Amino acid sequence: MSAPPPVAGGDPYRSAGVDYETLDAAKRVALAAAAATSAVPAGRGARLEDASRGEPATLVEVGGLRLGFVLECLGTKSMLARAYEEATGEDRFAAIGYDTVAAVVNDCCCIGALPVVVNAYFATGSAGWFTGTRHASLVEGFRKGCVDAGAAWGGGESPTLSGLVADDGIDLAGSAIGVVPDGQPALLGEALAAGDELVLLASTGLHANGASLARKVAAGLPDGLGHRLGSGEALGEALLRPSPCYVGVVEALQQSGASLHYASHVTGHGLRKLMRAQRALTYVVGELPPVPEVLGFLADAAGLDARAAYATFNMGAGFALFVAAGEGAAAVEVARRLGHRALVAGTVEAGARRVVLEPIGVEYGSGELELR
Amino acid sequence: MSAPPPVAGGDPYRSAGVDYETLDAAKRVALAAAAATSAVPAGRGARLEDASRGEPATLVEVGGLRLGFVLECLGTKSMLARAYEEATGEDRFAAIGYDTVAAVVNDCCCIGALPVVVNAYFATGSAGWFTGTRHASLVEGFRKGCVDAGAAWGGGESPTLSGLVADDGIDLAGSAIGVVPDGQPALLGEALAAGDELVLLASTGLHANGASLARKVAAGLPDGLGHRLGSGEALGEALLRPSPCYVGVVEALQQSGASLHYASHVTGHGLRKLMRAQRALTYVVGELPPVPEVLGFLADAAGLDARAAYATFNMGAGFALFVAAGEGAAAVEVARRLGHRALVAGTVEAGARRVVLEPIGVEYGSGELELR
Repeated sequence: MSAPPPVAGGDPYRSAGVDYETLDAAKRVALAAAAATSAVPAGRGARLEDASRGEPATLVEVGGLRLGFVLECLGTKSMLARAYEEATGEDRFAAIGYDTVAAVVNDCCCIGALPVVVNAYFATGSAGWFTGTRHASLVEGFRKGCVDAGAAWGGGESPTLSGLVADDGIDLAGSAIGVVPDGQPALLGEALAAGDELVLLASTGLHANGASLARKVAAGLPDGLGHRLGSGEALGEALLRPSPCYVGVVEALQQSGASLHYASHVTGHGLRKLMRAQRALTYVVGELPPVPEVLGFLADAAGLDARAAYATFNMGAGFALFVAAGEGAAAVEVARRLGHRALVAGTVEAGARRVVLEPIGVEYGSGELELR
Repeated sequence: MSAPPPVAGGDPYRSAGVDYETLDAAKRVALAAAAATSAVPAGRGARLEDASRGEPATLVEVGGLRLGFVLECLGTKSMLARAYEEATGEDRFAAIGYDTVAAVVNDCCCIGALPVVVNAYFATGSAGWFTGTRHASLVEGFRKGCVDAGAAWGGGESPTLSGLVADDGIDLAGSAIGVVPDGQPALLGEALAAGDELVLLASTGLHANGASLARKVAAGLPDGLGHRLGSGEALGEALLRPSPCYVGVVEALQQSGASLHYASHVTGHGLRKLMRAQRALTYVVGELPPVPEVLGFLADAAGLDARAAYATFNMGAGFALFVAAGEGAAAVEVARRLGHRALVAGTVEAGARRVVLEPIGVEYGSGELELR
């Protein structure tokens, strides 16, 4: 398998220290090694569903249950919280804890598995990190994230990795087990069909992806994270707004009897993630959600054109739901009742695997998202 | 809950950048927050078993299954492999990958849950880490670790954390789901009883804990990791010998009908981990296994007396099994057939929670291991 070509319009991440080409290629090497192991636990009554490889969560069948399994990280966003604390004295680690859980559980529910337990990974560079309120805040945010996701917080690991993690830093990740409810399909892309409607749920801003680029932009501003956006809000404040938890929407759709065919958490690779499923289908977006001020600012400040911006950030679309023809409006209503802004943004059409963002005249071809 | 007093004889980790007092206290704050969430997923048919809090794996009951859930990391051992590669040109990342899985699955099987799937966390500081053979080796070692544990490799996450993880470093962790076989008890300590026999399985050396201290010792030697031990083996070579996988022993004991009452993975805190269970019981060790040359060397070089050494390293005892009275010899035989050196090392006695290492005249009191 060859490395994907870079997105035309430049690769803004590479200059921020994130080389998706190398990473995606390495990921495929690991996936190939992992692929041969699916049947290993057969003697223990378990089987890994190969169709879930490359999906946001692994599907494991065991004892009649279908489990979703995720290990996901927050990236470098904790460094933004640390820098913001140093600049303003304000502790935003509760948001960071919540974000960590959101990164995990929003991936988990993509395959239709509702999280039941989440474990934490808090790796610091020195015990000095634990001074002040930040650990208590982090713990409270993580706890709230679990509760909002409907999951127990099981446990986890909190090592000090002296010399490996930055002295004032914390590497945050989490893992979750989810359960696909009885009678519900696992969402691995097979059910996607031409005619399906695409519903986009609003993001609150940066979420877990793009923090390295945001730090680079902030470093180039005279006021750094204190820079005032047009609305008057500080850049750091906007960047550190917690991610939404989308689990409740997936659960409510399952319970409502909706024909939910697929779901995609819009993270790294931006709206290219709409074609996450390995299917020959075209995703035509006729309406895009409003762009959060902070993402518009970051895209401009980083010199990204629309094509690069929508390939990098969520640009207002945090989560995508694909429902049967005619069911989009009802799904939007379910999401709204749970407090999420949402819109029927487009449709799935027969055709080559690609994403078409009509309002901005941008297309992403299949080769621009190779995750398996 | 108060912080545990330091081990008499000094805290060798603190000077190596690992402050267990602060970490253990923080862990208890997190455990307290997590404790209130056990019933949150009840609506999804799942419940976290509170008795598993503080155990090496979380026990989750869902749909009639008892799942073990672990998120565990390798610590800083990858830095030893990186330094060894720089010094000798030899790539030991296969051992590091294997070690990462061993750290996870050896925890998982402690509660009687046999791993069925493992996910990987490979967090690098820069894409430059992926040069040469080390990524391919890491992947191969991780894969082999999964297969030896009887588990599928599901997937995972491999972010670049520029500025957060050292440029030439990799933060390695993993997560596993295990299943407690039908008809077998989960091992949470309730079954432990006076009269039980303690079986110790041999370690191969450092395993996943103590790498920061080992790096500090190596830094003080003229030849560093190339220092020749008495046997002629290079220090680095000995430090990077892969950990054993103990899962097969637990599985074989379950299948043999043995009365396995408890198990403890001897990691951080050394042989204090023999009193991991929150029970008023005394663990009397009458015979200790041979000390691996490399651990004896490290203890001497770091100036640790026996009390500190056995509270820090595994000192040859990688895994502890607690079986019913009279069953120790049979358990040893099961382990030996699977290629593990093992011995009946002692007994569980009525009395205060403490560990007594008779051959070296050392005792650890209950307050020296507070993990919950």
